[in-house]
Amino acid sequence: MPYRSPVAEYKFVLENIVGFDDVAATERFAEATPDTVDAILTEVGRMADEKLAPLNRNGDLYPAVLENGVVRTSKGFAEGYAAIAEGGWNGLSAPVEHGGMGLPLTLTCAMNDIFSGSCMALGLNPLLTQGQIEALDHHAPDWMKDLYMPRLISGEWTGTMNLTEPQAGSDVGALSTKAVPNGDGTYAITGQKIYISWGDHDFGGNICHAVLARLPDAAPGTKGISLFMVPKFLPKEDGSLGEPNSLRVVSLEHKMGIHGSPTCVMEYAGATGWMIGKDHGGMAAMFTMMNNARLAVGMQGIGIAEGALQHAQAYALERKQGRTPLEGKGGSGTIADFADVRRMLATMKADTFAARAIALACGVALDMAAATGDKGWQARAAFLTPIAKTFGTETGITVSELGVQIHGGMGFIEETGAAQYSRDVRVTAIYEGTNGIQAMDMVARKMMDGGEMANTLIDEIESFAETARASLPELGGAVWEAAETLREATEWMTGQGDLNDRFAGAVPYLMGFARVLGAHYHLRAAMAEGGDGPRTRLARFYIDRLLPEHVGHLAHATCGSADLYAFTTEDLTA
Amino acid sequence: MPYRSPVAEYKFVLENIVGFDDVAATERFAEATPDTVDAILTEVGRMADEKLAPLNRNGDLYPAVLENGVVRTSKGFAEGYAAIAEGGWNGLSAPVEHGGMGLPLTLTCAMNDIFSGSCMALGLNPLLTQGQIEALDHHAPDWMKDLYMPRLISGEWTGTMNLTEPQAGSDVGALSTKAVPNGDGTYAITGQKIYISWGDHDFGGNICHAVLARLPDAAPGTKGISLFMVPKFLPKEDGSLGEPNSLRVVSLEHKMGIHGSPTCVMEYAGATGWMIGKDHGGMAAMFTMMNNARLAVGMQGIGIAEGALQHAQAYALERKQGRTPLEGKGGSGTIADFADVRRMLATMKADTFAARAIALACGVALDMAAATGDKGWQARAAFLTPIAKTFGTETGITVSELGVQIHGGMGFIEETGAAQYSRDVRVTAIYEGTNGIQAMDMVARKMMDGGEMANTLIDEIESFAETARASLPELGGAVWEAAETLREATEWMTGQGDLNDRFAGAVPYLMGFARVLGAHYHLRAAMAEGGDGPRTRLARFYIDRLLPEHVGHLAHATCGSADLYAFTTEDLTA
Repeated sequence: MPYRSPVAEYKFVLENIVGFDDVAATERFAEATPDTVDAILTEVGRMADEKLAPLNRNGDLYPAVLENGVVRTSKGFAEGYAAIAEGGWNGLSAPVEHGGMGLPLTLTCAMNDIFSGSCMALGLNPLLTQGQIEALDHHAPDWMKDLYMPRLISGEWTGTMNLTEPQAGSDVGALSTKAVPNGDGTYAITGQKIYISWGDHDFGGNICHAVLARLPDAAPGTKGISLFMVPKFLPKEDGSLGEPNSLRVVSLEHKMGIHGSPTCVMEYAGATGWMIGKDHGGMAAMFTMMNNARLAVGMQGIGIAEGALQHAQAYALERKQGRTPLEGKGGSGTIADFADVRRMLATMKADTFAARAIALACGVALDMAAATGDKGWQARAAFLTPIAKTFGTETGITVSELGVQIHGGMGFIEETGAAQYSRDVRVTAIYEGTNGIQAMDMVARKMMDGGEMANTLIDEIESFAETARASLPELGGAVWEAAETLREATEWMTGQGDLNDRFAGAVPYLMGFARVLGAHYHLRAAMAEGGDGPRTRLARFYIDRLLPEHVGHLAHATCGSADLYAFTTEDLTA
Repeated sequence: MPYRSPVAEYKFVLENIVGFDDVAATERFAEATPDTVDAILTEVGRMADEKLAPLNRNGDLYPAVLENGVVRTSKGFAEGYAAIAEGGWNGLSAPVEHGGMGLPLTLTCAMNDIFSGSCMALGLNPLLTQGQIEALDHHAPDWMKDLYMPRLISGEWTGTMNLTEPQAGSDVGALSTKAVPNGDGTYAITGQKIYISWGDHDFGGNICHAVLARLPDAAPGTKGISLFMVPKFLPKEDGSLGEPNSLRVVSLEHKMGIHGSPTCVMEYAGATGWMIGKDHGGMAAMFTMMNNARLAVGMQGIGIAEGALQHAQAYALERKQGRTPLEGKGGSGTIADFADVRRMLATMKADTFAARAIALACGVALDMAAATGDKGWQARAAFLTPIAKTFGTETGITVSELGVQIHGGMGFIEETGAAQYSRDVRVTAIYEGTNGIQAMDMVARKMMDGGEMANTLIDEIESFAETARASLPELGGAVWEAAETLREATEWMTGQGDLNDRFAGAVPYLMGFARVLGAHYHLRAAMAEGGDGPRTRLARFYIDRLLPEHVGHLAHATCGSADLYAFTTEDLTA
């Protein structure tokens, strides 16, 4: 069964779960009426189903290759990209004054979910361009905005992010790429960058590299980093392509997944660049790009979960193995009737819903912050971003893993595509900041408010659970109690003065928080349908069976670091 | 850093954790003295480190291929196999009267761990031969034993298992391959078999296919299945190879991992076969082979966990990223100093230990059952087998996943080998009975005793925890309490008359049981070193941080099936 974009699911979640009507009620996003949202999602979905999904397997089988210094992409990818560009989808949430549609970021989240579910390797390309558009909008000088933004928004040009160097991964501050002023306002950029997704392609147009580098007088560490625009071709004033810049793709990586996405080692040999933002202001500009990208990567995880779910559903409905417990009782007669398969399908569906609701709540908070400037919305978005990224990508991994398992032996055979979801999604827990880095951001920077935002969310969860208790006493009660356990863990966390004690439990704390938050959204879904129906059944499944995992996560989260540092290095590595 | 077989770890676990001295004290295994065990493990380890580990990456990069109807294996595999055969390792636990060493199966478990950690794709070959030797020993007529067993034991010939057909996977009873008597004591075997690991190769000798098929008068389902020996070449009386049999490899599968292991689609076109066992007695014979193989597959998971652990340890000790919390405090100065990386390394190490201890306890029970014929040991082995298989393979999956994560971006790049562990091990949760099937076996067949064996184990856990409490009160107390929770879940499970209510929680019950059992073995390890030292530190880590997961597992395990069957088919598949 081919992929079908989950448009109806999106409409339900936006309308009933994450308060998208608040966004549509703002002046800034007044155009995001239900009709517009419907039209946009339907059109994105139609395009992805028809143009992107058919490319997915091909990209896996026939990776992008480097030929004579240029990247030749997988067959059909250029046409797929053209369909994305023609729809204007790079600019769905980009400013209207530069040719964008100016619609809420929440809709771009939906789009990234759909692009990833249909063809993650290609869908990664517009995701990077979106991030660059946002960075330019916030930090670039006007001439650069005027030259680059319309072309990125139209899809004529594409954008990349160049952070990592061999010695500088999670420690971005260790990067050594140099930027030397040429005296004419430009800079000569010299250095090597690795893991550059879509660093080159054969779609035509320009490839705009946003490159982190150091000015000659720069301080060490992250404070001495500036951001530069380094295009593949030096644009003329009219925007036409001029001379090639002094940069090249050295090689492509052989990866576990997303083979269709060329991951480049880039060499800059005195390439001409222009500064985005201020001297030594590179990290601020890069964070704009990365914050956007973190949520987008969470959406990739969710998109893959959706793709893997649909794929496993179709297989389960088709595969027959022996007598089933529902024979003659209206079952399907297939493996979908077996309890263990039902458990797996329900887990996949329940976690995909939870991860999507969390991510869209983050999207709504970002939109509300943008529309109102309200600090509460900003703080909420900042707090939810690492959760959305990490839980979205972990869900992509576990759900695609279950998808393989439902396929049995066929899951291990590449032909079915189940394994591809599992391989493709693996990178999402790593790039744009590993999930460990996300969790450390959550328990340190995002809890510098003493846990205020965390507790605001816990208050909301408890308050809704109280209300729900009247009609769904068991579910409401279980969610309320889990929220109390989360509150205790949060108190413990904010009470630790030594950040290392927080870091020692950061990942399980984040996962425990996500488990409880997911239960909250499931409860909202159950209440939205009046406490009876398929969403209530799924909520019950999640709350009875998956929510209890928070106990283990939060016990793990609150151990402190003493035991980890009682280990000698040899204990752990010999 | 290259793979190093965990010989010292084995000696510790055998001597201190799983009571291997009981095995050595039996008459049957009197030769398995500490010196012999040491010599065997050292020699297996040396061979695997030197001859097998260097082949691992090559097998992944250059899979076996089918050329003109025969399989050409990855470069170096023939030499690697020759080293296995020369050591006589196929026959480590095989009967002495046919040329085997007659040593305990527990040592074969250790060997399979080591073979898989060094090169799982090749290590799968002897594993299948071991299973066939055991099936022949129990079920074959004497002439067949005399002809086949010495050659399988010497490694001159290899064995395969042929169960699955396209329509008959987990439902083995649906198989349709026919066996028609030729009137001369032989049978004509006709049908197609899939997923035949090592169904062909270029190592020389004969390839002995153990094939499940139906006699013309056979009942439907598993009761009508018989087992046949169908060799690639018809052996002459002196054992030399005669005419080729009427069978062929139709194609090889393209798989997610273990590329070096040729997974064949086999076609039997009236091939000559000889019955192993009795008419319609195929399942009994096959179960001998599969029970052996299930534990061996658990060892594959553990072996991969070991390989991934060593690989991640080496990377963590080498990779530098910024200032670490242990700078100037005797740390490594590498990422191994960071709390989150320590958490991951300790999780990998703690789970690998737990899974290995559980599997070896199963091996010891099998050896004791074989040596004494005692029903208690038999029941213990039967109960532990699905846990050893499932927890061993799930540990392989989660540990190799963490290995990828520790590598950061490099984890997704195939060059490092971290991804290969993760891809290779994925099949172990599927073959020899999916982990779902294992768990259903555990809660149904293995609890037909009303939970007696489960409670015997829980009693032992509690009793040891009581003793440990005197010197390690917190750890002993936590393990005791977890065992009580497990006892309650076990009571619930055995109280369900409708097996579907058990099946609905089978996998989480098994995982919860394994979590508690793992804690027991960690506690034993801590006590064995006197309650202070690296094993005690690891035990504390496991009991504080990982053991609490049993709460979520066991809550999930005891929900019954009503919620799963409240879902309509459409709820779950649309």
